[in-house]
Amino acid sequence: MDILFEHVTAVTMDEASPVLEDAFVLVSGRKIVSVTRQEPEHFKGRRISGQNKVLMPGLVNAHTHIPMTLLRGYADGYDLQTWLNDYIFPAEAQLTERAVTAGTYLGLAEMIASGTTSFSDMYYFCDRIAQAAAAAGIQANICRAVISFDPEYRFETDQAGIELRELKERWHGYDEGRIQIEASIHGEYTSHEKVWRAVAGYAREHGLGMHVHVSETKKEHEECIARSGLTPAQTLDRAGVWDTRAQAAHCVWVSEEDLELFARKKVTAVHNPVSNQKLASGIAPVPAMLRQGVNVALGTDGVASNNCHDLFGEMKSAALIHKAATLDPTVIPALEVLKMATAGGNAAQGRNGGRIEAGMDANLILLDFDKPHLTPCHSVVSNLVFAARGSDVVLTMVRGKVLYEKGEWKTIDLDAVMHEVRNYAVPKILGRL
Amino acid sequence: MDILFEHVTAVTMDEASPVLEDAFVLVSGRKIVSVTRQEPEHFKGRRISGQNKVLMPGLVNAHTHIPMTLLRGYADGYDLQTWLNDYIFPAEAQLTERAVTAGTYLGLAEMIASGTTSFSDMYYFCDRIAQAAAAAGIQANICRAVISFDPEYRFETDQAGIELRELKERWHGYDEGRIQIEASIHGEYTSHEKVWRAVAGYAREHGLGMHVHVSETKKEHEECIARSGLTPAQTLDRAGVWDTRAQAAHCVWVSEEDLELFARKKVTAVHNPVSNQKLASGIAPVPAMLRQGVNVALGTDGVASNNCHDLFGEMKSAALIHKAATLDPTVIPALEVLKMATAGGNAAQGRNGGRIEAGMDANLILLDFDKPHLTPCHSVVSNLVFAARGSDVVLTMVRGKVLYEKGEWKTIDLDAVMHEVRNYAVPKILGRL
Repeated sequence: MDILFEHVTAVTMDEASPVLEDAFVLVSGRKIVSVTRQEPEHFKGRRISGQNKVLMPGLVNAHTHIPMTLLRGYADGYDLQTWLNDYIFPAEAQLTERAVTAGTYLGLAEMIASGTTSFSDMYYFCDRIAQAAAAAGIQANICRAVISFDPEYRFETDQAGIELRELKERWHGYDEGRIQIEASIHGEYTSHEKVWRAVAGYAREHGLGMHVHVSETKKEHEECIARSGLTPAQTLDRAGVWDTRAQAAHCVWVSEEDLELFARKKVTAVHNPVSNQKLASGIAPVPAMLRQGVNVALGTDGVASNNCHDLFGEMKSAALIHKAATLDPTVIPALEVLKMATAGGNAAQGRNGGRIEAGMDANLILLDFDKPHLTPCHSVVSNLVFAARGSDVVLTMVRGKVLYEKGEWKTIDLDAVMHEVRNYAVPKILGRL
Repeated sequence: MDILFEHVTAVTMDEASPVLEDAFVLVSGRKIVSVTRQEPEHFKGRRISGQNKVLMPGLVNAHTHIPMTLLRGYADGYDLQTWLNDYIFPAEAQLTERAVTAGTYLGLAEMIASGTTSFSDMYYFCDRIAQAAAAAGIQANICRAVISFDPEYRFETDQAGIELRELKERWHGYDEGRIQIEASIHGEYTSHEKVWRAVAGYAREHGLGMHVHVSETKKEHEECIARSGLTPAQTLDRAGVWDTRAQAAHCVWVSEEDLELFARKKVTAVHNPVSNQKLASGIAPVPAMLRQGVNVALGTDGVASNNCHDLFGEMKSAALIHKAATLDPTVIPALEVLKMATAGGNAAQGRNGGRIEAGMDANLILLDFDKPHLTPCHSVVSNLVFAARGSDVVLTMVRGKVLYEKGEWKTIDLDAVMHEVRNYAVPKILGRL
């Protein structure tokens, strides 16, 4: 059935005029059909009132590890090595397909309710992640990261390589491209040149995207330079890793030269401001990224280092922290942050989206602005970035289908998910089952 | 009527064991009467189920300018001087008592719904702020800031001095101390020694608290040193400003010596991490404050530089930013942040509170944890600081009275407030009325 949002404040993200007041946005099938100030004639279908509501493009979470939702707030407050070695890795070692499915659905419920319509994920058990994303109706770019220190590494026989090929066969392009599979090197510091060349070659050959952790910590960045005289970004470049559409997650310690490289090769830098603060990785040079013309997207990173999937919080953090770091209140205005979370994320994923205009996929979220904390509304864009929360989302639509509306998930049985998380998945990872 | 929270997870903030599972918290009159693991016998009154809910002490917003809620998101993205001189000051010049009342009620509705049970405010038209706070049932410490460059300044005839004395007579101690009036010097850079001595003397004489902006910007801090060879904190100390219970707001650029002084004189540093980032003031040395034993409280600052009153966002920001600034993930653990927003705020205000224990005032908030973004719950404290949002609050109680429950304000006519804000106060400050 066609859907008409009527009399709505539409954040179209149009370059010249990003906000259209009192608009009519018509959705048919998976597409936005028209965006007008006049009511379309002879409309038959469902009407959704936009009174005191804001319609905007769905948010893209361009870097996360969704099964880690099971580890929300687990062992916070330790130093990184203790946290990883004594808590996170042992818990992950207990994971089963069933637990991953539960954690994925939990993360999907959270994402969809807080306005995320697409996400890029890097983890294991990717077939289960793809299954859940497919069933939930969200868009997803999913990759299985390769980690290998084996000098005899062969892509053909490596477990991650085998899984990547299986994933590609089964899921890449599923449901008119709603699910995409990407190649992934976990990071420069967790593999070597033979791995990089093989995985990058496979990605190029099959037109797949690439997803890599880059210069997240100072240690990782400096150790690479000490080893090779080159930064991680430059090292991976020599192996052809950036010669396909690519997402470089974190980029906290990248150099100006790295950013020139990313701009030239059209690599997206995925900014994770909350995780970078929580893990004490540092503050990424996002103003320099924008100056150099690098595409920037936003990600929450795994919930274990956030501790939530709410991209509204991520947007606020992205808008705030660089002002403090540079002592310049004009850097990265709110509209720029909104672009990162919409058009920036779509470009990162190789999707055409992030604006409300005819012909675009109808990935839309509706927010209720009739609330004290969003009143007055001198600027819709400022209110979205600095005052809105994921809980203000009252409707989430992906490709024309309503996935969430007013506290109800249409494609996820939330009670069953919560039961499975509490009674199976959490006891399992804690070694109590 | 007595109220019993039953089978609730109580964040008592007890030093040895801050979280008590499956607790019974009994409230009678304005007090918490008992906190037990056993159900009290013969209870007659209202029972509130605590199943999947968390009860914690109400949050204290220790530095704001509540009528500025009318300026939410107004003229964001300019440099500080343009923002102030071309937008904020001209809008404030249009304020009337009626507009201040509307803005105050709007801010109160937001605060109360997001779990704030007490606030410290510095602004003008303070009688109107006190009236609204009194009617809404919240606790408030209210001060009228003195700004004066007049060399002939006399406290007796100065307008701010007259207002302070009137406020004290009318409101100080109102409703068993629910409303308190404090003395205030706006800042070292907006007045001079004659002012400081007079206002500090009045505060000491009448046992009033003191509220001052201190070293918010680098410029303010360094210009004071250039003028006098002393920091703002030291300069004000020489005039006796810290010889009463005092709140020093911001403290972004304070020195180690300033913090020694604050620890010795028991001055509270009020940390405003969001505002300090948004206005590009910098990052306050909160780890050093805690090391020196300074009491730290949290504030949102005015909504024009935040842009909301949600202390859950403020807690998350306080827990995050110092990890990035120090590159140490263990600084300021979540529980420490929770203390700032509860016991720290109470101490700042000269109130006895911030814990759930028998004999304390029943300033309590209840959060619904039966939600995807708060599941699983490996740590209640981590979830509160890193994953909860103001919108998770389902009940706010001040001194035993329920002010807010499940979307309903009991003491504020929200529709009337929203109407007045939209149709009178906002057009007025924008010069359209």
